[in-house]
Amino acid sequence: MSETRQEKLSLSALCHVGPGTPGGAMFRRYWLAVGRAEDLKDIPQAVKVLGEELVLFRDGSGRLGLVGLHCSHRGTSLEYGDIEARGIRCPYHGWLYDVAGNCLDQPLEPKGSTFCQKVKHPSYRVQELGGLIFAYMGTKESETPPLPRYAALVRDDGMRLVLPPRHWDYNWFNFFENTIDSLHAFFLHKPSRADRSWENAFWDYPGDHHIEAFRTEYGLKTVVHWPGPTSGTVYVRLTSLALPTVFSLGGRGVEEEGFERLLFVTPVDDDNFMVFSSDFVPRDKVDLIKKRDQSRYAPPTAEPVKEYDKRKQVPYRGQVWREDYVCQSTQGKIGYRDEQLATSDRGVILLRKLLLEAIETVQQGGVPQGIVSKEKESEMITLDAFRLILPQGQLDQVMRQD
Amino acid sequence: MSETRQEKLSLSALCHVGPGTPGGAMFRRYWLAVGRAEDLKDIPQAVKVLGEELVLFRDGSGRLGLVGLHCSHRGTSLEYGDIEARGIRCPYHGWLYDVAGNCLDQPLEPKGSTFCQKVKHPSYRVQELGGLIFAYMGTKESETPPLPRYAALVRDDGMRLVLPPRHWDYNWFNFFENTIDSLHAFFLHKPSRADRSWENAFWDYPGDHHIEAFRTEYGLKTVVHWPGPTSGTVYVRLTSLALPTVFSLGGRGVEEEGFERLLFVTPVDDDNFMVFSSDFVPRDKVDLIKKRDQSRYAPPTAEPVKEYDKRKQVPYRGQVWREDYVCQSTQGKIGYRDEQLATSDRGVILLRKLLLEAIETVQQGGVPQGIVSKEKESEMITLDAFRLILPQGQLDQVMRQD
Amino acid sequence: MSETRQEKLSLSALCHVGPGTPGGAMFRRYWLAVGRAEDLKDIPQAVKVLGEELVLFRDGSGRLGLVGLHCSHRGTSLEYGDIEARGIRCPYHGWLYDVAGNCLDQPLEPKGSTFCQKVKHPSYRVQELGGLIFAYMGTKESETPPLPRYAALVRDDGMRLVLPPRHWDYNWFNFFENTIDSLHAFFLHKPSRADRSWENAFWDYPGDHHIEAFRTEYGLKTVVHWPGPTSGTVYVRLTSLALPTVFSLGGRGVEEEGFERLLFVTPVDDDNFMVFSSDFVPRDKVDLIKKRDQSRYAPPTAEPVKEYDKRKQVPYRGQVWREDYVCQSTQGKIGYRDEQLATSDRGVILLRKLLLEAIETVQQGGVPQGIVSKEKESEMITLDAFRLILPQGQLDQVMRQD
Repeated sequence: MSETRQEKLSLSALCHVGPGTPGGAMFRRYWLAVGRAEDLKDIPQAVKVLGEELVLFRDGSGRLGLVGLHCSHRGTSLEYGDIEARGIRCPYHGWLYDVAGNCLDQPLEPKGSTFCQKVKHPSYRVQELGGLIFAYMGTKESETPPLPRYAALVRDDGMRLVLPPRHWDYNWFNFFENTIDSLHAFFLHKPSRADRSWENAFWDYPGDHHIEAFRTEYGLKTVVHWPGPTSGTVYVRLTSLALPTVFSLGGRGVEEEGFERLLFVTPVDDDNFMVFSSDFVPRDKVDLIKKRDQSRYAPPTAEPVKEYDKRKQVPYRGQVWREDYVCQSTQGKIGYRDEQLATSDRGVILLRKLLLEAIETVQQGGVPQGIVSKEKESEMITLDAFRLILPQGQLDQVMRQD
Repeated sequence: MSETRQEKLSLSALCHVGPGTPGGAMFRRYWLAVGRAEDLKDIPQAVKVLGEELVLFRDGSGRLGLVGLHCSHRGTSLEYGDIEARGIRCPYHGWLYDVAGNCLDQPLEPKGSTFCQKVKHPSYRVQELGGLIFAYMGTKESETPPLPRYAALVRDDGMRLVLPPRHWDYNWFNFFENTIDSLHAFFLHKPSRADRSWENAFWDYPGDHHIEAFRTEYGLKTVVHWPGPTSGTVYVRLTSLALPTVFSLGGRGVEEEGFERLLFVTPVDDDNFMVFSSDFVPRDKVDLIKKRDQSRYAPPTAEPVKEYDKRKQVPYRGQVWREDYVCQSTQGKIGYRDEQLATSDRGVILLRKLLLEAIETVQQGGVPQGIVSKEKESEMITLDAFRLILPQGQLDQVMRQD
Repeated sequence: MSETRQEKLSLSALCHVGPGTPGGAMFRRYWLAVGRAEDLKDIPQAVKVLGEELVLFRDGSGRLGLVGLHCSHRGTSLEYGDIEARGIRCPYHGWLYDVAGNCLDQPLEPKGSTFCQKVKHPSYRVQELGGLIFAYMGTKESETPPLPRYAALVRDDGMRLVLPPRHWDYNWFNFFENTIDSLHAFFLHKPSRADRSWENAFWDYPGDHHIEAFRTEYGLKTVVHWPGPTSGTVYVRLTSLALPTVFSLGGRGVEEEGFERLLFVTPVDDDNFMVFSSDFVPRDKVDLIKKRDQSRYAPPTAEPVKEYDKRKQVPYRGQVWREDYVCQSTQGKIGYRDEQLATSDRGVILLRKLLLEAIETVQQGGVPQGIVSKEKESEMITLDAFRLILPQGQLDQVMRQD
């Protein structure tokens, strides 16, 4: 970290996302996932993003809108408004807004009134890509970056599965740093890996692993490796992440090669967040995505709960998301909790450093890491991720900055 | 608004009602409805008014009392006390209070103790009128004004219906300004007016209406008019309001002439309020009041809810109170929300002005609008309200300050 | 009270127990009950004490531990950790702690890492006595006092019944001062004393009672007496209390002589507390303890609730704990409520005085009342308590400082 930043920013800057906070200013430079395309029909959706109350809708002509939740007139929630061909209409006095926030009609004003032309309702840019809806909540037109074209969202040589978003009730950063904290998977998720022969191999060589984190163009990657099953081979687990909130997880072993899961984390406020996801598999592995989806909803292989066990979250073992929830939701907020970081936290440490740098860069008027430049606007972005047995000789290639 | 007030008071003064606030001081100069007479039997009722925790009771001799909720001894809630002939007795150590707050008995004190004479428990003046219980929460004896004798409470030439009070969980002002916001009735309540042929006529002349608000002796009135069904006639909707929280709504058309609904709004605290109501009809229209009461509890004529519509308050259309709840409860507090007022808000604008003036008047030691003078103590107060087709020539009479 | 303390401490100091508060500092000089031995098996118990989040456990070798709830690594709750022979292991990355807070293992660190030796997790001293688990939350080793050996916990000439702890949602002090407020028992608990002929006698002499409170070695005692059933006799009710939170209640009449109920109150935070209890009877009265236990769970002899009685806590009469809950939970916090203390509050007044003195003594670096000295470490402490008819001549003996 630079001398300057250490003086100005503490870790707690990572968990505050509202308007006027340094972290909030950073987030407002990126596109964020705010909805799943197939969920948005003819009903307005109230959605809170970065502490702002908004309403997401698709007007009768198919245009996407993300505008202030409270009517500019006297504040009534547009969540209860009506979708019309040209926009959304407040139920109270009937003011009609288009997706750009223009007020098109005020039916209770007298004939000839031009008052509606003076009303500009808050609105943000919205785009749909790969089944997800992304918003840009920056306010300077000139700074709007291209929407990143992550591979799992734009590839057309396979199948895509966009699951319903999940809503969680703790700070977004606990979830996001957990994604790049590769080693927790081997310990915490042990009980859930009944069928995960690939990851079981980790425990055949206790303490004989190595973890390293590397900066990449758009974020960072973490590599874990340990001795392979045969001489001259290594097990390698590589995951990647793009700032500010995109995570890429690959498949397990050769049989799942090509599988990619992208997670898009979006802070609701300082105490809640949403996770959107997109799974992609190449055409010849369509079965895989179905199998994955099934296992997600499988009943947990949980041990029976003892009659005197009164804890809220039991049983929690046997299902990855429950195991994660118990660990992350009880941590408290980053910057407010006591911590002692270790070697296993190398990914976490680099992520914190890069995000604090991004916040600082935005404070100084610069362009933070993870923003796609105009020149690369149409390029597809691949966030490397796999879990494979590699020849020892290939390790060097993986273990370096891109 | 006067120069002075603009410097001192913002709109937010309207939503704060607790002790020590400017709005709270204003409210403590008026009588407020705090209960329905028929609900108050031999059980104490905890009631919070203007942020103060109180207990309302009727002693065994029929006297009404409104005293501090917490026993003067060690604070236990008198809500769980016992009603006796002479007052209310705390369950903890048995201290007995009369309706004036005098402590009459302390059974655990030794014989001959006179300590109870030194105890004065907080108490407020209470009066019953027309089936409602009113309290005066001012503290200066000399300032106590007469209890206003609104017509719907004192007329004896017809039938009165006092409905159970309603309790709502948002700021009182959103509700109260909605009463005088006449035009919302035509837009928001469209779906609920299946049988409201009178109000449907509004939409035959879109934009051809006129709204005006006028100061009256005790508050204000709002008049909406638009072209009548025959040449030389006008539809006129007139509603009135008395400071600080009384609203009068008339019947629809000649068939409902003489019907009057009075609403009494009472702030519980800054986030909750109660509404008491009294309907009155002349003797020859007794059927009307029954019909009205039935329609109030009729099931809403609601559209079916789509399976993917996850909003909390659906369906809300087809029942006036649900439509109002959705619009008012989502507005946020006055003075804290962004607003852009229009022509349709003339009633609302005048109401805010008069209430801020009343607050300022109280701050300066004066007598605010809406207080009944001693000279007029026994006069009946009529708050004009009707919805009628009038000859054009009568409009001038209606469209002026009283 | 001393001049000095009056300047520095208000009554509100009694209800604040968190780290850094004067009351919190006082509590951290005493042993406090934190669990019941038989409830602590192989599941960690999250427990909040004096505002601190902790986890209580018994390791696989039977050792008791009370350590910080949040893992020293990245904060995950150890409530969801696993008990092992040597300690408790965090579910997230597997760090293992022993009962003294030493970190014994970090399975995701590389071979040869000595990092765990640098980690010291917060931990407190814990001891088991008479079926209860006590913790000492002071931080200076040298100040640790002996665990008091109250008779009901250590006597072996009878039977002990340790009931499940109760958890309440108001400030601890309202409960604790109620224990020594002897007279409330005669008024509030009247409806519950169907079978309490002993206490009914109080009302045969209304106002003819006397109450006095006396300082004792470890706290205070309260004596109530009134004319006895025959000439030359007195009814005497004596209860005792040890600082900071131990209360002793005796049996009723000769038939219950020797019965003792000890209550141990432990503040959870400023708004919640737990009550642990231990009942003891001599060998020849074993039936008594069973009868008492049965009556505790007997259905209340409650009056029917009127259909129009909408209060939350009805019926509450007929069961001692419900009657107490209604009175204590509605009082508000000491120091924040208005009060007028009377003769009946003599026990309460002395308790407040002694606790404020204890707080002040700790502030000044002294040893507060109620602490057992090293010299008396192995002495059994008897907290006198009985309800008996005594010869008038014995009253003097009771009515004096020990």
